[in-house]
Amino acid sequence: MDPLSSALLTDLYQLTMLQAYYEQEMTDTAVFELFVRKLPPGRQFLVAAGLEQALDYLEGLRFGPEELAWIERCGHFKPGFAARLERLRFTGEVHAMPEGTLFFADEPILRVTAPMPEAQLAETRLLNLVHFQTVVASKAAHVRLAAPGKGLIDFGLRRAHGAEAGLLAARAAYLAGFDGTATALAAPRFGIPVFGTMAHSFVEAHASEVAAFAHFAAAFPDNAVLLVDTYDSIEGTRRAAATPGRLKGVRLDSGDLDALSREARRILDAAGHREAIVFASGNLDEARIAALVAAGAPIDSFGVGTSLTTSADAPYLDAVYKLQEYAGLARRKRSAGKATWPGRKQVWRELDAAGRFARDVVSVERDAQVGEVLLVPAMRAGRRLPQPGLEHARARCRSQLARLPAPRVEIAPALRRLAEDVDRRS
Amino acid sequence: MDPLSSALLTDLYQLTMLQAYYEQEMTDTAVFELFVRKLPPGRQFLVAAGLEQALDYLEGLRFGPEELAWIERCGHFKPGFAARLERLRFTGEVHAMPEGTLFFADEPILRVTAPMPEAQLAETRLLNLVHFQTVVASKAAHVRLAAPGKGLIDFGLRRAHGAEAGLLAARAAYLAGFDGTATALAAPRFGIPVFGTMAHSFVEAHASEVAAFAHFAAAFPDNAVLLVDTYDSIEGTRRAAATPGRLKGVRLDSGDLDALSREARRILDAAGHREAIVFASGNLDEARIAALVAAGAPIDSFGVGTSLTTSADAPYLDAVYKLQEYAGLARRKRSAGKATWPGRKQVWRELDAAGRFARDVVSVERDAQVGEVLLVPAMRAGRRLPQPGLEHARARCRSQLARLPAPRVEIAPALRRLAEDVDRRS
Repeated sequence: MDPLSSALLTDLYQLTMLQAYYEQEMTDTAVFELFVRKLPPGRQFLVAAGLEQALDYLEGLRFGPEELAWIERCGHFKPGFAARLERLRFTGEVHAMPEGTLFFADEPILRVTAPMPEAQLAETRLLNLVHFQTVVASKAAHVRLAAPGKGLIDFGLRRAHGAEAGLLAARAAYLAGFDGTATALAAPRFGIPVFGTMAHSFVEAHASEVAAFAHFAAAFPDNAVLLVDTYDSIEGTRRAAATPGRLKGVRLDSGDLDALSREARRILDAAGHREAIVFASGNLDEARIAALVAAGAPIDSFGVGTSLTTSADAPYLDAVYKLQEYAGLARRKRSAGKATWPGRKQVWRELDAAGRFARDVVSVERDAQVGEVLLVPAMRAGRRLPQPGLEHARARCRSQLARLPAPRVEIAPALRRLAEDVDRRS
Repeated sequence: MDPLSSALLTDLYQLTMLQAYYEQEMTDTAVFELFVRKLPPGRQFLVAAGLEQALDYLEGLRFGPEELAWIERCGHFKPGFAARLERLRFTGEVHAMPEGTLFFADEPILRVTAPMPEAQLAETRLLNLVHFQTVVASKAAHVRLAAPGKGLIDFGLRRAHGAEAGLLAARAAYLAGFDGTATALAAPRFGIPVFGTMAHSFVEAHASEVAAFAHFAAAFPDNAVLLVDTYDSIEGTRRAAATPGRLKGVRLDSGDLDALSREARRILDAAGHREAIVFASGNLDEARIAALVAAGAPIDSFGVGTSLTTSADAPYLDAVYKLQEYAGLARRKRSAGKATWPGRKQVWRELDAAGRFARDVVSVERDAQVGEVLLVPAMRAGRRLPQPGLEHARARCRSQLARLPAPRVEIAPALRRLAEDVDRRS
């Protein structure tokens, strides 16, 4: 059972509900929408990401022999359920905001229209994929805005939450404007530029820092970024500047990065290394980077690790996947503090004369509004429509970031009326 | 390239360092230790977890044809490097704290002793695996302490950071004392009990809550936990109590859980459902659970989701994997604010007469101290030694939690002297 694509990668309750739906032949069309109820502190906007992987999942969704054997032996289900699951495929439609689209609270970013069991089963993994990449892309875009014109590299695999998190974080960060990642596998897998040079252990393993730098420069002629803070950043920078061959740059990883970067720049320039870059890393996030940029620290590129891949200040979003319509009737829950807007919805986005965000309107699908329609078809009859790809998503995100600040988001009267109708009915 | 086990699931700098090490034939024995420099706020202790997966990784570590083809074409490396990598296997030793061991700042929990290239390459994925499970096990243990005698179920796959995070969080939470998970795949994969009943969408898809409950109870006779808060928790509980058949319980997922659980208990008892449980979920963490328990809310079991699987209040630890010794000489870095204790270390744990934690001593390996030795052999010559398994780790964690509060942690004089020696040398 492939842990990344198994049909059992879901909550058990999806399966218990499926058994009940099949028993009652409740297989009419259901419409679910994925949206974020509230933005966390520190996020002025979110960036839609993860659609590509969500479509992969839906196209590949099936119960294989091992999954079916577990269904039969686990004791949770009735005889005959496994046979029904064996035939299950995702045959529905998906509408979604293209990856890289900026969005706000209560705006659906993905809509699934499919026979109830298929649409229900997919909830857990769809959320798992879209939520996480959206978390990281949103964080990365805020870092991007803090560092205009600077290089940004994802350094976060080691403290990402598992392998898939590390890989998808590299993708989401690149989508949102990072220049690349340290995660080697992201290059063959997603075509993302990869960067990396040396760790402190490399310096420590040598008899001296001078020897370590000389060996590394010999191994990577013209391409060595030397890590200078193992013992003393200034002395290390002097040794780097004196290392034979062309120096690509130095990396500072601790201490007062503002002061150290100025001194490092002076040492490099004085030694004739005017092209060499100053790279900074070490517990960086958008606030620290913004402070360094504002102070005018001569840092060319930043490595951002843990705070990016765990989105440490907001490691989750209030993202949900909610039933909006079943068998032609709009639905919603009214749980205390958790009521949602019902029905099959659309988001229209209006720009001002300068191309900036002016107004988003959320309404029922057929209540056409002014502006660009944000939810567009992504899958029909279980087959994906051609997707624009990661570079296109990255360009879309970049162009959207230039349209900030955030628009006002309005709920259209037609949607408010529908909510009242639904509440009266149930 | 399997995203969970590819040898390219590492930082590019591990590979650039390897090329330099091979060029200089620096393949002597290196000793790296994995430890946490500082505990985050909200953690009185940490729980070691993830060793099983770390050993899997090391046993399977190799560059396959696709990885080698990428190494050759990517442009980062010299000709001949791929051929050297093709022969690389992990041939070293691992010592580690058994999973489920409680530990504290500066105590190594895993030590790798291997030829430098093997030990260096493994850094990223070892940290990625051990860090994340330790993050979640530590969080879960704090939740466990907040809810003595209560059922605890992991509900967090949907907002975990990817699939591997969801699966490994289920494992880490169970290890630390949870009773099970909603993640179906965790059952066949780790033998963890799985739980789950219904979502709000199930209720909403029906013409009425009464019909939804009746259908679900028919599908799961004697085993239905009914979700009662879709429209109104009290009315929902009354309808659940009136549903034909034996009721296993009701689930509250919103609102004032203290007040609602008391009212739900009264309704269930009055209807003769004295065995039926009250299950609570919805944005729970250890603080909210502790408050509900302290108030005496009659809740039998809690579902804990996002706050558990993202460890929302502390989504990462200051976990590092540092070179301690190379070619027989102890090493350490002295970077500002990041200096570490050098050398090959051991942790000894002393209990008091009542079996409680009294004192931990961290020293160099041969400087024997009083108490239990915590780092024990886990792998020799690249093959794992028999591991006690998940149930044993769970029992170990439970017994260790009974020995709290935390001991004082001492750095032995011999280790302090070694640090001074190392600094004088470099």
